[in-house]
Amino acid sequence: MGIDKGLALDDTVRARGPRVVAIGGGTGLSVLLRGLKNYTSNLTAVVTVTDDGGSSGRLRGELGVLPPGDIRNCLVALAETETLMDRVFDHRFKAGRGLKDHNLGNLLLVALAEITGDIISAIKEVSRVLAVRGRVLPSTLQEVVLAAEMCDGSIITGETSIRSVRESIKRVFLIPEDCQPLAETLEAISRADVVVLGPGSLYTSIVPNLLVEGVAEVIRKTAATKIYVANIMTEQGETDNYTVGDHLAAIYEHVGEGFIDYVIVNDEAIPCELLHRYHQEEAFPVVADYEQLAAMSVKVIRENLLSHSNVAWHDPDKLARTVLKVVRSK
Amino acid sequence: MGIDKGLALDDTVRARGPRVVAIGGGTGLSVLLRGLKNYTSNLTAVVTVTDDGGSSGRLRGELGVLPPGDIRNCLVALAETETLMDRVFDHRFKAGRGLKDHNLGNLLLVALAEITGDIISAIKEVSRVLAVRGRVLPSTLQEVVLAAEMCDGSIITGETSIRSVRESIKRVFLIPEDCQPLAETLEAISRADVVVLGPGSLYTSIVPNLLVEGVAEVIRKTAATKIYVANIMTEQGETDNYTVGDHLAAIYEHVGEGFIDYVIVNDEAIPCELLHRYHQEEAFPVVADYEQLAAMSVKVIRENLLSHSNVAWHDPDKLARTVLKVVRSK
Repeated sequence: MGIDKGLALDDTVRARGPRVVAIGGGTGLSVLLRGLKNYTSNLTAVVTVTDDGGSSGRLRGELGVLPPGDIRNCLVALAETETLMDRVFDHRFKAGRGLKDHNLGNLLLVALAEITGDIISAIKEVSRVLAVRGRVLPSTLQEVVLAAEMCDGSIITGETSIRSVRESIKRVFLIPEDCQPLAETLEAISRADVVVLGPGSLYTSIVPNLLVEGVAEVIRKTAATKIYVANIMTEQGETDNYTVGDHLAAIYEHVGEGFIDYVIVNDEAIPCELLHRYHQEEAFPVVADYEQLAAMSVKVIRENLLSHSNVAWHDPDKLARTVLKVVRSK
Repeated sequence: MGIDKGLALDDTVRARGPRVVAIGGGTGLSVLLRGLKNYTSNLTAVVTVTDDGGSSGRLRGELGVLPPGDIRNCLVALAETETLMDRVFDHRFKAGRGLKDHNLGNLLLVALAEITGDIISAIKEVSRVLAVRGRVLPSTLQEVVLAAEMCDGSIITGETSIRSVRESIKRVFLIPEDCQPLAETLEAISRADVVVLGPGSLYTSIVPNLLVEGVAEVIRKTAATKIYVANIMTEQGETDNYTVGDHLAAIYEHVGEGFIDYVIVNDEAIPCELLHRYHQEEAFPVVADYEQLAAMSVKVIRENLLSHSNVAWHDPDKLARTVLKVVRSK
């Protein structure tokens, strides 16, 4: 299926664009949002808050705040125009005791949350300053820890620890298990035209959002088209040797069968040099096992989706147009 | 002499307001600016960059940047409206390893200087975001250290060390001694209607600005009225037992006699409880020795200038109106 060519739309057209809820975290979600914002302003990003590494992890550990990094990434991705403020928000300190590797945007979100009294108001204020199209919602406001039951029966606690252990993951769960979503999230999913899961880390970005109480249930009930965007590469320690079907099966194991209507798969070959570099990090192309997928009753959309850069990521615009084509075809 | 009562003026009137250059640092300068901005937008603040304590000192030591704290204070003081961004800019982190006690505004200035390549562009960008009335100029762009020759002949290096030593200060000097001002500073002073020194720490905020090459000379040459605003209280370790005349004499010892036309002196009694609290910190009201001042050929303006708050500071509006009355009387 070919992707429609078309320029980004103007504000009035975007305002009538489809209602999209994008669920995930990390870089994958922001790639999707960066593409979608040019076609619709009816965008809700639901972002995982289980990150405990890097700048986010330090702020979480030292200040007891929600990890701001994934929220920051999404806000920058949805910023209407590229301005100096975007760069400020994304700026990472290269030196300074205790300051090194902190993103200024993370510190701004934390400061605004302290001043306004809550992270939701902080996100709204930053959204205003960055002229963000759409909105960004944390999956829960509770302090929540990701844990995993590994295939050898051991339990590993904390996102960073889970990624660093070589043993395969059997399932992940949240501590506490009964953490609550925002009412806005549930409402957005109910009213959506399309719910998109991924691209993004399977067990640490996608599934944690689905484990927040009521979220999987409302996704199952909504009339929206449900799309899973398959990752381009496996992730070492998390999805080694996983096929596209294995990814989908992992989601189903957490929230039940038949959750997804469409799977979007990259069909474009990855350049040799890039493969070689990923190989060093024990990451390999995710194989699309079309028979397995057919047996799972999902419709598969195959497209050339590779960004022609020095990373094996989705091209934001190609991905967004593929998502919208699926919505329109319904 | 009574202070004219009057409401703050509108933009067009302020645009025709007198050209004021305010020179100093720390809290004193920002109090003056907070008052002046309501009467004129032709405002240039020249700010000392010898601070080596607190958040500024850490950033200076760890990142090798100009200390941003005094610049930040002046920018917030000149912000046109009180908005959430002002509060963000002034926000101080209360916890976090390496983050505690840093002001977000300091971090923003440092990040913007890294992104834009220089502190002047960073200040301009923040001025835009905060809708700053007037402009803020660092006294020099060079990394400069304040040193003092004490009355016992010893040399102390660094602003914080100078303040902490009990021995009296004989004179201060900059290392390097030949550091250069901004061309804009010299031009602003030449074209000013009034140059105001103080209020502020004598040896660590006022005099350092006058030691930057060419600054004292251009102040001496300008047709502008030169005002010194006397401090309300002495500062322990810096101006113990100093009268108003002693302050003026200290300035003259650094830059020569006859530098100042008017001295503004607070004439209002300080409440007993406040005196008691300052007493604990070995700070006492600065005595105005009117005979000594008359002998120094300066005109003395006595006004009730106390802010009715829990600190013995100048009231911004009363101080601004007194300054403007002096300018108009010329």
